[in-house]
Amino acid sequence: MSDTLDPAIRQFITDRFYQPGFMTNFDTRIVTLEYGLCVIEMPASPLILQDQGFFHGGAIGALGDTAGGTVARTVLSYPGDVLALEYKVNFLRPGVGDKLVARASVLRKGRSAIITRVDIDCVTGGEAKLCAAMQQTVVPVGAG
Amino acid sequence: MSDTLDPAIRQFITDRFYQPGFMTNFDTRIVTLEYGLCVIEMPASPLILQDQGFFHGGAIGALGDTAGGTVARTVLSYPGDVLALEYKVNFLRPGVGDKLVARASVLRKGRSAIITRVDIDCVTGGEAKLCAAMQQTVVPVGAG
Amino acid sequence: MSDTLDPAIRQFITDRFYQPGFMTNFDTRIVTLEYGLCVIEMPASPLILQDQGFFHGGAIGALGDTAGGTVARTVLSYPGDVLALEYKVNFLRPGVGDKLVARASVLRKGRSAIITRVDIDCVTGGEAKLCAAMQQTVVPVGAG
Amino acid sequence: MSDTLDPAIRQFITDRFYQPGFMTNFDTRIVTLEYGLCVIEMPASPLILQDQGFFHGGAIGALGDTAGGTVARTVLSYPGDVLALEYKVNFLRPGVGDKLVARASVLRKGRSAIITRVDIDCVTGGEAKLCAAMQQTVVPVGAG
Repeated sequence: MSDTLDPAIRQFITDRFYQPGFMTNFDTRIVTLEYGLCVIEMPASPLILQDQGFFHGGAIGALGDTAGGTVARTVLSYPGDVLALEYKVNFLRPGVGDKLVARASVLRKGRSAIITRVDIDCVTGGEAKLCAAMQQTVVPVGAG
Repeated sequence: MSDTLDPAIRQFITDRFYQPGFMTNFDTRIVTLEYGLCVIEMPASPLILQDQGFFHGGAIGALGDTAGGTVARTVLSYPGDVLALEYKVNFLRPGVGDKLVARASVLRKGRSAIITRVDIDCVTGGEAKLCAAMQQTVVPVGAG
Repeated sequence: MSDTLDPAIRQFITDRFYQPGFMTNFDTRIVTLEYGLCVIEMPASPLILQDQGFFHGGAIGALGDTAGGTVARTVLSYPGDVLALEYKVNFLRPGVGDKLVARASVLRKGRSAIITRVDIDCVTGGEAKLCAAMQQTVVPVGAG
Repeated sequence: MSDTLDPAIRQFITDRFYQPGFMTNFDTRIVTLEYGLCVIEMPASPLILQDQGFFHGGAIGALGDTAGGTVARTVLSYPGDVLALEYKVNFLRPGVGDKLVARASVLRKGRSAIITRVDIDCVTGGEAKLCAAMQQTVVPVGAG
């Protein structure tokens, strides 16, 4: 599931993504956005650390939740929106590095629910290490 | 599991909690901290919204992750710390209101892992509605 | 959410529960069935063990999944059925004893999804110990 | 992570897998077993159905849990064993077909925990469809 994305959908998703709110606090940005594929990243900064100096698990989970919700919108008809039903994140190693990069794909687009999978890397210089793995369920709302 | 908390542990946990970082961006604060029980809250603000005007699921998950990690520290010997292995959050309704309140308890303190449960309410005026339910696993690190 | 259950719904759920299939292999039976509350149990037997002599985590998860699906049906109109979207189980201790007892309740009945929580005890003689904790999402199908 | 597996470890894992117990009720068998990779399958039969005629979600989850626990043993030193801490399964479509096939890999081998990912296909004739996606955490016990 990785195809060209309709320009109106791309614009709709992008506008929503950069609308000021929770994720814009952390300079989160879209790297790749295609039908069924979304890559977003969050730069390292004191704003996303926990008390031991690692990236906060809640920031990692929030990045993954956002990546999953964003990729789900790419497989809906314009202007489809979603709400998250649930997500689950496994942390594979403490998060350190220059940035976090989340790659989300759609495992299944059903009528009543979309299931996504998100892998999150910690990137230091040119090296990426998988630091978290997620699965998420979202439901279409509105036009969808 | 809800007992008086050793003052040194309370101080240690509190200092760590308010150390500037991810959660202090949102004025998160401790309401209750006892052995095996932790209640924290996050006030409503534009900083925690998503694009449809609800509390961002990532902010809700981060609050729950923090509540779970905090309650886990209350059952460790001083100065015990933890790292999250995983968490899972179910969203019960879109998050709106004056604040989010997370109540965390310890389901099980094992040698290698502590399992917590966290219920998160949306509070509007005097009314609280359960808006998310979480389960989390953390592992002790250091002295623990 | 624990009220009297409509007799037709009780009969429908009970008939479905005891219809020969996966769970009847293990003599699973309903202990309590009310609106928003379901308790089922599975007796200890060699049929549900794993290779170290504990109750198999898959059997525990299946019991919890069934308890959750069953309690969800109690809050639907007759003859409502469900399919599971996802479940998550945390194991708190190795499972041993005379039987497994799962208590399921409904955290939220939404239009498109029902979220349940299930606690699973291992019971030995008169003593019950919480051995697993679950959260589950199901979707109504058919009449619901 | 997919290498040749030490013959003693292969024998140990295989013996444990086919020891009579929960999974042997369903003629579950190992298809592939390498370092960091495990494929197991369960044939369709009335023994694994739920009341609507689909494969029971509990049977699917149990198959995935077993595949994950088995692949985790392949990355331990002989004779390493594991206990599951938690698993999470998303169901992508109702399960039907000739058999269920679970492919498990190791996302991360840490000191205190091993995180696995499991994809489960429903296979009908020559066609496989992804019907469930899992993530699991296990902890090494004994020699491991």
